[in-house]
Amino acid sequence: MAVYTDVTAEQLAGFLAGYDLGKLLSYKGIAEGVENSNFLVHTSTGNYILTLYEKRVAAKDLPFFLGLMQHLHSRGISCPQPIENKKGELLGKVAGRPAAIVSFLDGLWIRRPSADHCAALGEALAKLHRAGLDFGRKRRNTLSVEGWRPLFEHCRGRADEVHRNLRDLIEKELAVLERDWPRRLPQGVIHADLFPDNVFFLGDSLSGIIDFYFACTDALAYDVAICLNAWCFEVDHSFNVTKGRALLQAYARVRALGEDERAALPRLARGAALRFLLTRLVDWFNVPPGALVRPKDPMEYFRKLRFHQKVKSASDYGIGA
Amino acid sequence: MAVYTDVTAEQLAGFLAGYDLGKLLSYKGIAEGVENSNFLVHTSTGNYILTLYEKRVAAKDLPFFLGLMQHLHSRGISCPQPIENKKGELLGKVAGRPAAIVSFLDGLWIRRPSADHCAALGEALAKLHRAGLDFGRKRRNTLSVEGWRPLFEHCRGRADEVHRNLRDLIEKELAVLERDWPRRLPQGVIHADLFPDNVFFLGDSLSGIIDFYFACTDALAYDVAICLNAWCFEVDHSFNVTKGRALLQAYARVRALGEDERAALPRLARGAALRFLLTRLVDWFNVPPGALVRPKDPMEYFRKLRFHQKVKSASDYGIGA
Repeated sequence: MAVYTDVTAEQLAGFLAGYDLGKLLSYKGIAEGVENSNFLVHTSTGNYILTLYEKRVAAKDLPFFLGLMQHLHSRGISCPQPIENKKGELLGKVAGRPAAIVSFLDGLWIRRPSADHCAALGEALAKLHRAGLDFGRKRRNTLSVEGWRPLFEHCRGRADEVHRNLRDLIEKELAVLERDWPRRLPQGVIHADLFPDNVFFLGDSLSGIIDFYFACTDALAYDVAICLNAWCFEVDHSFNVTKGRALLQAYARVRALGEDERAALPRLARGAALRFLLTRLVDWFNVPPGALVRPKDPMEYFRKLRFHQKVKSASDYGIGA
Repeated sequence: MAVYTDVTAEQLAGFLAGYDLGKLLSYKGIAEGVENSNFLVHTSTGNYILTLYEKRVAAKDLPFFLGLMQHLHSRGISCPQPIENKKGELLGKVAGRPAAIVSFLDGLWIRRPSADHCAALGEALAKLHRAGLDFGRKRRNTLSVEGWRPLFEHCRGRADEVHRNLRDLIEKELAVLERDWPRRLPQGVIHADLFPDNVFFLGDSLSGIIDFYFACTDALAYDVAICLNAWCFEVDHSFNVTKGRALLQAYARVRALGEDERAALPRLARGAALRFLLTRLVDWFNVPPGALVRPKDPMEYFRKLRFHQKVKSASDYGIGA
């Protein structure tokens, strides 16, 4: 999608005058990010990403997101580094919008990750979790179990248009998860949206993690469950246990999964599948007419949910329960 | 708008393997170009623009456009340089589309050009015209006088929705220009779309000219007339003769305007205004529902046309007739 807000060269040069980033040489609106306007900015000191935060991102959450990237970057995580202006601030204003500049990361995202990519992802995720442990700020996960029923209310009336009985199936799953959701697992900063398009590789090496705008404080193992959903299924929606094992073992080498976390993995994975099923359903029914962007298929996550419902233990994902 | 065609890292890396451009490090779809999909590509040898040509650009014209950029670049004009692949070809295929790679140009475009900017533009335009004189290929201007009536047929039925009597006013103007259009002026390669957003500046210096996808063979003075329309009117639609003079004098210092060209300038300027009025009218009535792009105001060019209709001679534009 991208570039909702127009920025003139004069506005951008004025904004950059508040930074020690040299002279503005060029900038291009880039087709990235669904929620914000992003620009690739070239100055005499290098390449940067300028983000203008549009309405859907709550302004009150920006210090959490930017502070988190700054924290993780200082802990050696390869993620965009927010750039401070001359006053030491991370957040400014361009064209009437809250705006921030971060360092540009090279790298390419992989459409069909291999088991090796899954292992690299698992290791990076565990490092991210460890690096986040001493981050001072907290942000509630508004898209965890308490947020799912409100989402469901937005789409329950039309759910059956997408699949027969989908409404009842979601209703039942929601009741199970609301009752049995694991609430006492080790908490910390999670990325919460670590899909392949947010992970860059150069050759076979993971070179960076981007898009921290869903990051929040939640069960670390829930982030693992999101990644199992996002990285380890094949195009035919079958779960690839080799990829699951690669991801989980690589994760555990950096941060051991507790017995409670391993036991909770199937429920966490069901929850993660339901979360993306619900947000995709809501998006599915809210495509603006004539939109250039095709919404993502909600049924992909329904099929993943079906798989997780049959899982007996974490060993079905490739790790000892 | 931008980025119609999705390109995977694998597709792009495969395409780049046919070039001597080093290793692919990153690429971003950019929000530029109405007709094509454009990507900013970073490789180990530098920055490039990858363009995928969508349906509206006729494949048969691509050798003209790419050959022209190559020719002009070799003559010292600062424009994108098409990059040859290992076989010496300028045109290849990505994701099923004709595709080309050109060098990346730094620079910023100026929303409100000053008289100095207009002078820089005039000089660059004359240099472009001179550099194009020995370019071997020809391409007919499909948007010159013979193309206007067909455009009018597409919008005449609804023209009065935009402005009272607009249909009749265009009808009359079209008849005048079809009868009196200057057809024996010096010909050459013209850019034909040299609006401020296609001209880059770094500081006060003109650093590059882009977007040659309307370039064609036509009267050189017609290109001057297009620029008078695009650069020398104020936001309130009044003509700024200081800017006109700056543009024309700077042009004439590099390439003298003949007496016939100066005499024809008012009619050429009327034609240029009518051409953009007509294409904007057609676009105005063909906005896809829900489109993110607001079509440009046709009435801007109607007001410019009204001004040119009252012009007596080229001296009203700031140059001796």
